[in-house]
Amino acid sequence: MENFIAHNPTKVHFGRGVVNDLGKAASRYGNRVLFMYGKGSAVKNGYYDQVKKQLTGAGMQVAEYSGIKPNPVIDDVEKAADLGRRERSELVVALGGGSVIDSAKITALCIANDMKGWDIMTGTAEPVKTIPLIAVLTLAATGTEMNGSAVVQNPETREKLGYWNPLNFPAHSFLDPEYTYTVPEDYTAYGIADLIAHCLENFFGKGDAPLSDRFIYSIIQEALEVGPLVLKHPRNYEYRARIMWAATNALNGLTQQGKAYGDWGVHAIGHTLSFLYDTPHGATLSIAYPAWLKLHAGRIPERITTLGNNLFGVNTPARTIEEVRKMFSRLRCPLHLSDIGIDNSHKTQIVNLMHANRVTGRNYELSNADHLKLVNYMM
Amino acid sequence: MENFIAHNPTKVHFGRGVVNDLGKAASRYGNRVLFMYGKGSAVKNGYYDQVKKQLTGAGMQVAEYSGIKPNPVIDDVEKAADLGRRERSELVVALGGGSVIDSAKITALCIANDMKGWDIMTGTAEPVKTIPLIAVLTLAATGTEMNGSAVVQNPETREKLGYWNPLNFPAHSFLDPEYTYTVPEDYTAYGIADLIAHCLENFFGKGDAPLSDRFIYSIIQEALEVGPLVLKHPRNYEYRARIMWAATNALNGLTQQGKAYGDWGVHAIGHTLSFLYDTPHGATLSIAYPAWLKLHAGRIPERITTLGNNLFGVNTPARTIEEVRKMFSRLRCPLHLSDIGIDNSHKTQIVNLMHANRVTGRNYELSNADHLKLVNYMM
Repeated sequence: MENFIAHNPTKVHFGRGVVNDLGKAASRYGNRVLFMYGKGSAVKNGYYDQVKKQLTGAGMQVAEYSGIKPNPVIDDVEKAADLGRRERSELVVALGGGSVIDSAKITALCIANDMKGWDIMTGTAEPVKTIPLIAVLTLAATGTEMNGSAVVQNPETREKLGYWNPLNFPAHSFLDPEYTYTVPEDYTAYGIADLIAHCLENFFGKGDAPLSDRFIYSIIQEALEVGPLVLKHPRNYEYRARIMWAATNALNGLTQQGKAYGDWGVHAIGHTLSFLYDTPHGATLSIAYPAWLKLHAGRIPERITTLGNNLFGVNTPARTIEEVRKMFSRLRCPLHLSDIGIDNSHKTQIVNLMHANRVTGRNYELSNADHLKLVNYMM
Repeated sequence: MENFIAHNPTKVHFGRGVVNDLGKAASRYGNRVLFMYGKGSAVKNGYYDQVKKQLTGAGMQVAEYSGIKPNPVIDDVEKAADLGRRERSELVVALGGGSVIDSAKITALCIANDMKGWDIMTGTAEPVKTIPLIAVLTLAATGTEMNGSAVVQNPETREKLGYWNPLNFPAHSFLDPEYTYTVPEDYTAYGIADLIAHCLENFFGKGDAPLSDRFIYSIIQEALEVGPLVLKHPRNYEYRARIMWAATNALNGLTQQGKAYGDWGVHAIGHTLSFLYDTPHGATLSIAYPAWLKLHAGRIPERITTLGNNLFGVNTPARTIEEVRKMFSRLRCPLHLSDIGIDNSHKTQIVNLMHANRVTGRNYELSNADHLKLVNYMM
């Protein structure tokens, strides 16, 4: 086991009706709140009204920034931060999935440190403080509700970057499984693919941490058991609750303890696809993971077999990859670029952007030659 | 799944040499520290010197309270709190196992609120604040290093009580597996029995939380794999590290999320034995658990079989109990009261104290008739 720090300050309120406690929790941090959310579903389904009522009911002054996009762009962060600075916001409340919450994390840093969001994302500026963030989750997927990560893209520089800072942990996260009842089937599935991929990125990280590996198997097995059920019964509370909590645990530190770091090569590949084609994050991962495993089958056969053995009871890298494909397939996630309408004519474009952004993993490096192989495997 | 709050503010520093960061961490909380530790091993093995050096090296004024006993008594807490009040201590540093850290938790509450320790333990006084606690762990067992629990006994009232308060979470805990190299074989084994019992108490808690159950299986399987190895190779870093981290996760909230509460009936039985005979906590649990399972075999056969099936691949309550006995036996833990020198002549005494303290579980109640059966089963 590698030395590590385990520290997760986020207070998670989980279950039916927990948003009723939001006003009380929020008002402890100040009176002036920046309320960020996406377009569409959160408003349409009444979650916006519930959260707004909590904030105004607690006597707070609410400035609103709406319209954060899936695969969020830095421009929205800069604009939200401008609004927050103008309104002297003391805290941020984010209602949505990963895109909104990630944007809110960077926005909070921008406001507290009077910095530009992209300077923070690229490491040019180093924030030293933040204002508290309260997240209300509407999509089980990224785990951002209980970690220090944020992913935002910049169309100008053609980059989609991940950024980690301990300041980014939400002070509170409200997780009501009922808030995910209306997530459509495809996005429900992509969320499950995402949580599985988070487990795998840490499984293929650096360092030997058997208990973390056991937790990884536990979370993936939970997703495998509940995933098909939640797709079939989208308004079943227990299934939604189990997937929601699995997604949180897939990336809240639990599966990384005793490892120096995760790999995250597959996420880097996925970010390239999302950037180019606005492909939903989870869909890029179900396409990229089998390809990545195929590339590594001869390089780390034992590690891949260990995974296959513990999850599926199989004993070769090839059988493991086959089972991983079946797993994503049962979740109705795409396995090939062709499944999402990207044909051979796009190959060069993808490979070139992978080269330009030096797409690689932290534990297993990816060369330019690997990029080409990966794109071929994904076709 | 039941609604729940997941919040664990403790910052764990895990690994070789982490105590080198203690002085820096401690000095952030003030200059006047109350340093609590046990008699014997921590001093003999040089851990006392290392911690003391960290504190004085950070320029802190150190008041010391030594001699906390295994199965700690409230009298030591009251005396340590007197010292802390006199010295106007701003934080407490505890070096030891569960006894020292639990005593330090209550001591910190006593100092901050100017209350008596036993008034706090019994709920007569309600503390509203605390002073920060930094724990340095020397025994993998109770999980106190990352939770809000404390267990202390009062010889006068003939009670050994558990007490939980979110104020009790240590601010920091330093876990260096090398600090456990010199733990003797029997106490190493009792620690493992304790961590397994913590998992089981939550397994038999109220509410259906499949992911928590999976985490429970993971932690017990880790203990079953590493337990015999660490007993054989007490100075092996990896084995000590794995047991230490398993013990922390067995009672840091992870295995309870989605359940309303754990059962804790077996711990209540164990506390009775510890109080009467000063039996090490873990040894009481390896005796009490098989008896408790036997009592419940006909009442909750499915739940017991689920455990047996997931841990050992067996399919009846009887086979499960048999495997649980084997498990504790492989860890060289006692299975019967006779193994620790308590014969039939003590029966009445034990049963009477169980009646007097109304020993029961929270999820599965224990009647006076059950007490008698349990003692018979433990003989």
